[in-house]
Amino acid sequence: MTLQEKTAQLFGVWVGASDEGAEVAPHQHDMEEPVPLDDLLPHGLGQLTRPFGTTPVDPALGALSLLRTQRRIAGANRFGIPALAHEECLAGFAAWGATAYPVPLSWGATFHPELIQDMAAAIGRDLRAVGVHQGLAPVLDVVRDARWGRVEESIGEDPYLVGTIGTAYVRGLESAGVVATLKHFAGYSASRAGRNLAPVGMGPRERADVILPPFEMAVREGGVRSVMHAYTDTDGIPSAADERLLTGLLRDTWGFEGTVVADYFGIPFLQTLHGVAGSLGEAAAVALTAGVDVEFPTVKAFGAPLRDALARGLVPEAAVDRAVRRVLIQKAQLGLLDADWDPTPAALAGTDAHTDADTADLRGTVDLDTADNRALARRVAEQAVVLLRNDGTLPLAAGRAPARIALIGPNADTPTAVLGCYSFPVHVGSQHPEAPAGIELPTLREALAAEFPDSEIVTAPGTTVDGTGTDGFAEAAELARGAGLVIAVLGDRAGLFGRGTSGEGCDAESLALPGVQEQLLDTLLDTGTPLVVTLLAGRPYALGRAADEAAAIVQTFFPGEEGTTALASVLSGRVAPTGRLPVSVPRLPGAQPSTYLAARLGHATEVSNIDPAPAFGFGHGLTYTTFDWSHLVVENEEAGTDGEFELACTVRNTGARRGTEVVQLYLHDPVASVVQPVQRLIGYVRVGLAPGEAAEVRATVPADLASFTGRDGHRIVEPGELELRFSASSTDARLTARLELTGPVRTVDHRRRLHADFQVTHRQER
Amino acid sequence: MTLQEKTAQLFGVWVGASDEGAEVAPHQHDMEEPVPLDDLLPHGLGQLTRPFGTTPVDPALGALSLLRTQRRIAGANRFGIPALAHEECLAGFAAWGATAYPVPLSWGATFHPELIQDMAAAIGRDLRAVGVHQGLAPVLDVVRDARWGRVEESIGEDPYLVGTIGTAYVRGLESAGVVATLKHFAGYSASRAGRNLAPVGMGPRERADVILPPFEMAVREGGVRSVMHAYTDTDGIPSAADERLLTGLLRDTWGFEGTVVADYFGIPFLQTLHGVAGSLGEAAAVALTAGVDVEFPTVKAFGAPLRDALARGLVPEAAVDRAVRRVLIQKAQLGLLDADWDPTPAALAGTDAHTDADTADLRGTVDLDTADNRALARRVAEQAVVLLRNDGTLPLAAGRAPARIALIGPNADTPTAVLGCYSFPVHVGSQHPEAPAGIELPTLREALAAEFPDSEIVTAPGTTVDGTGTDGFAEAAELARGAGLVIAVLGDRAGLFGRGTSGEGCDAESLALPGVQEQLLDTLLDTGTPLVVTLLAGRPYALGRAADEAAAIVQTFFPGEEGTTALASVLSGRVAPTGRLPVSVPRLPGAQPSTYLAARLGHATEVSNIDPAPAFGFGHGLTYTTFDWSHLVVENEEAGTDGEFELACTVRNTGARRGTEVVQLYLHDPVASVVQPVQRLIGYVRVGLAPGEAAEVRATVPADLASFTGRDGHRIVEPGELELRFSASSTDARLTARLELTGPVRTVDHRRRLHADFQVTHRQER
Repeated sequence: MTLQEKTAQLFGVWVGASDEGAEVAPHQHDMEEPVPLDDLLPHGLGQLTRPFGTTPVDPALGALSLLRTQRRIAGANRFGIPALAHEECLAGFAAWGATAYPVPLSWGATFHPELIQDMAAAIGRDLRAVGVHQGLAPVLDVVRDARWGRVEESIGEDPYLVGTIGTAYVRGLESAGVVATLKHFAGYSASRAGRNLAPVGMGPRERADVILPPFEMAVREGGVRSVMHAYTDTDGIPSAADERLLTGLLRDTWGFEGTVVADYFGIPFLQTLHGVAGSLGEAAAVALTAGVDVEFPTVKAFGAPLRDALARGLVPEAAVDRAVRRVLIQKAQLGLLDADWDPTPAALAGTDAHTDADTADLRGTVDLDTADNRALARRVAEQAVVLLRNDGTLPLAAGRAPARIALIGPNADTPTAVLGCYSFPVHVGSQHPEAPAGIELPTLREALAAEFPDSEIVTAPGTTVDGTGTDGFAEAAELARGAGLVIAVLGDRAGLFGRGTSGEGCDAESLALPGVQEQLLDTLLDTGTPLVVTLLAGRPYALGRAADEAAAIVQTFFPGEEGTTALASVLSGRVAPTGRLPVSVPRLPGAQPSTYLAARLGHATEVSNIDPAPAFGFGHGLTYTTFDWSHLVVENEEAGTDGEFELACTVRNTGARRGTEVVQLYLHDPVASVVQPVQRLIGYVRVGLAPGEAAEVRATVPADLASFTGRDGHRIVEPGELELRFSASSTDARLTARLELTGPVRTVDHRRRLHADFQVTHRQER
Repeated sequence: MTLQEKTAQLFGVWVGASDEGAEVAPHQHDMEEPVPLDDLLPHGLGQLTRPFGTTPVDPALGALSLLRTQRRIAGANRFGIPALAHEECLAGFAAWGATAYPVPLSWGATFHPELIQDMAAAIGRDLRAVGVHQGLAPVLDVVRDARWGRVEESIGEDPYLVGTIGTAYVRGLESAGVVATLKHFAGYSASRAGRNLAPVGMGPRERADVILPPFEMAVREGGVRSVMHAYTDTDGIPSAADERLLTGLLRDTWGFEGTVVADYFGIPFLQTLHGVAGSLGEAAAVALTAGVDVEFPTVKAFGAPLRDALARGLVPEAAVDRAVRRVLIQKAQLGLLDADWDPTPAALAGTDAHTDADTADLRGTVDLDTADNRALARRVAEQAVVLLRNDGTLPLAAGRAPARIALIGPNADTPTAVLGCYSFPVHVGSQHPEAPAGIELPTLREALAAEFPDSEIVTAPGTTVDGTGTDGFAEAAELARGAGLVIAVLGDRAGLFGRGTSGEGCDAESLALPGVQEQLLDTLLDTGTPLVVTLLAGRPYALGRAADEAAAIVQTFFPGEEGTTALASVLSGRVAPTGRLPVSVPRLPGAQPSTYLAARLGHATEVSNIDPAPAFGFGHGLTYTTFDWSHLVVENEEAGTDGEFELACTVRNTGARRGTEVVQLYLHDPVASVVQPVQRLIGYVRVGLAPGEAAEVRATVPADLASFTGRDGHRIVEPGELELRFSASSTDARLTARLELTGPVRTVDHRRRLHADFQVTHRQER
């Protein structure tokens, strides 16, 4: 290959799909100048950027368009190599008409990796069916400051939860033959004050023990094939310029063999935003040297500027060869180097698309939102509903639902209120108001009407999501007073870059509810009518008086197209709530950042007047039944620093309804050579129990799980006391085993065990 | 010395002075058990803790009491060694009746090191006169989050400002023969969310480039003889357990030879708060090994627990010897090992205190608040007043003051509103309401009445500092409507551990004014009467509408006993305002932390909706005249990475009044191998000019000032472009020199130059 043929494999071009099924010109997204495709293609092309997620396009015609574009690309270069097509799939395929699943915070709330793996497999199949090879998910950023707009895209505030759920997602997507992409590597979620892209100030130990573990797990256990660098710098080093991170740790230590891709425009940002490069060529050299293989979304730095940098000796051609090898190996794995690389995509099976399709006939023939998809989306949404508080008002089972329900709030009758920022309707559709939504999005008003056919549902918005208007308060209060129950539905409006209250570039100044929603809540509380607060939100919010005074509080995090149906079914009790908080719900709107994963001094102390204790802690979630925890068994109170502990407890459903307890296992290390969090999650298991049923939960916990990054930067297991706490949440430890690690300090490497093993043995009692 | 005699030199005992001049029993401050002084003293005693700052005591009798206690100590050990007595002196000697100077944020606002040195020398003389050897100041923590309660104790948010002002303080204190104590070493100010003692997450580069430089300057240039460790941990390592910091950097690299003392109870905290030690003995071993020489305030870990740790081999006796040597060398320097160690303290000169004083006759004979002191306190307070905004309403010079002024606000008539948390009346006196204040503290109402004898001053509090009551708003508005001018006086109430809105343990959730003060401001604005906002505060606050709508805004930071007089004199114009902001005044109450000292992405960007730009930036401050900046001279546009630049500009007073411009020099490094702040202060100089007068300000800037901590952890100067900006503030660059550093990357060591040299040449023009 010539140098230009090599570098051509190292970038994408943004080609919006044609809704006419035709070849397309490069999309002008955020670019000052058009890409000269005719000049580029003879050298080949590494990637095609967002063929579906750029404009509303019929899926079948999009698939045809992509196929034709690929043929043009393959036909234009002397090796016949097509591009690798990538697309967003954060909470479902970001394509018109594709299923909008719940956002990642909801996945975290399920504490159910297998379910998330199933969902990701379905997403992967849809991507693959239309010719997409790589999906830009999952986000493995551990939430560090809930003011950040991209918290909705994250799985939670605990690395183990993020790692297990995220790895399940990777497995699902990869099982469909789609390259999963871990992002954002690494530290983005810890940007200062939660402001998008703001510098990250953390030290190497926090990074190693909090930020990196989910990535390590997904690399080692998920078989992920791509990683995207983070935009941010950490302590002055931008991730895209961090060779120790992208090469030393990721490849040399963890053994990653796939591609490292740039976050969109991340390489030019080394010049324009970070100032660690004086030109695009220097930026290209810095990024390529560090280990960024592919430039997204389009060619800015890895074209002529990179070739110029090579000519100036800023980077050796061996660095190009290294990246090209990774790209071509991946294309080979995907079959893109095979002679018959262009089988008709599954979505076009049975058509003559491969040679001579009649495009008009294809329109509407591909369904990216099948009944199976919707059932899966609903199942995830149901499992992700978190019941935060309940004075017995819920469930509103048959006969208990009042004759008139007042449904109040800005999200009461808004179809898109269930969608996150990266859903197609919000991310792209909002720019095309002329296009139909492409999927059914029942509002909560509609879902409640279906769920409670015998109740009259009266509704008013009260206010807007983020406006300051209170004119609607009077009407809202009047409806509330006239009803047997008020359901308030509050939260966010997802959007991009300031167009919403949650989402990329929609950061919050504090964790007060947007606009005047808290005042609306207080107004409703003042009516005296029992109030059920529901939230369709992208982040946790401080709820003020309602945290203590509402009859019930039900939290959802943008639960997707089946979200309101799922929420209504939990309100009625048709579905039992099983979700647990993946992020703490704060009591104070300020005093951020704060996380459960903090050392003693990160929690309430006598030396500060500010108590950061949450209103509802990480892992919290109520059910409609009760559980008794008993029979702590500790098989061995001592184990070597290379050994393991075995312990067990019994959980019994002591209520009258079937329910699911999420048994959470936290580790507390009272004395260590470096400061440790008070507790951290090291395992969890969902236990579904019929009334009266019990189950023994037995855990085998390798000492490896007690490891942390020591003073010299190595991961170690230290001897000494240890507590393992069987807990219903981070604020509700039920049974504590006091244990002792013995023997020498042991240095563990990156083959260490990452999990406790759980065995759940059900037995019917009495 | 026996082991016990050695360890006895390594701790203090808290002995409250007697107001009867008698020997005293140990103070029971925060201790579960009394200290058995009779058992301890035969072995000797390292330190006496807070002989004056514990309870109200007449200074002469306190000096006598201390002398007698010292005689008992010296007499009880076989070497005849007395203790080294230490006291707080954050903003003046923390003793009853001693001058309360402005707090350190006010020192920062003066941009006037020489004045602060004079003040510290006066403080030192007063300490020394009554027998105190060591003062626990200055605080060199660089402000990183203004929500922290101890921001009032800090000098500002820029390391160069903190370093120069703090070093001046050290020089002043040491010039009086008093051991100055740098605190808190290091990182305390960056505690998470500004919560006191909460973990610090910063990386090593931020620490090296922001937190450590003031300490380095004070060690290298100030000749400081003691350093106090910080309470906090940074990235998991508590400062008191950080050998690399306390020994490797401080001593081995910087050459410090004095003592490292514990922050109060900081060694036990290694066990109880940080969990890096399992017992007091382990804590003692960890701290001593790291380099903590002396335990404050009393013996918890360095007594029997340390001896036990030595017996168990947790720490070698050589570590004890090392610390004892440092302590005894310092005592020798202070003359405490001389045979005639106990000369009559200056305060008792002329009395027979040395042998047989008549205590009753001594009462009232020592004045710690002399006229000279008050004049100095006033001068500092005057120079620290910052005029943030002025539509021409100020100054209220003779004839322009309205006949009736409404003075509104919770700090309008509160004597202690000018005092910080570490002032004696707040820190100690508040616990002794029966005792008189000991110093005169005119309220702003009194000061305005004196300043404007021809105006009627009507006053109402409107609300309390931190209450939620709005009942007083109506009266406040009525007074406002009836007056020609409203002066609002808002801000903080200093206190300890939750008793105030500012001070140690009084952190803020956000930077909104405490209580309902912003609503009070809005109410006053709504009256339409011109509003001058004044602030007696411990931190900067977002002022809401008033930031744009007030006629004028005058910021003071707890300006001390002469503060209201100084404020009134600036309002009248009798004194010209010369202060500049040492911390940014935010526009948003949330979105913290934020600082001017941030990289591009730490400022407003297109990728976040949150704009953290301040209402009034670091270095801002108006005057009553105008200045023209011109004639930028760049003697050399290029210099080697080991060279220097010479540049100059001319500043002319173009107004009708005498005034002082603070010429600030900022460095902007557009491209560097690690991300740089957009700008940082590298020098400043005050230029006082008569109307029409001009001065040339010439600066010689060594390339060393462009150094930063590179990727490998070493401090380097890189070749490339550089801008030096002659600026009136961080948001008001006036003349920019575009320069080039040439030659190789140069590694600089800790002998690097720390300052630009300024030459100011006045010339009368026209």
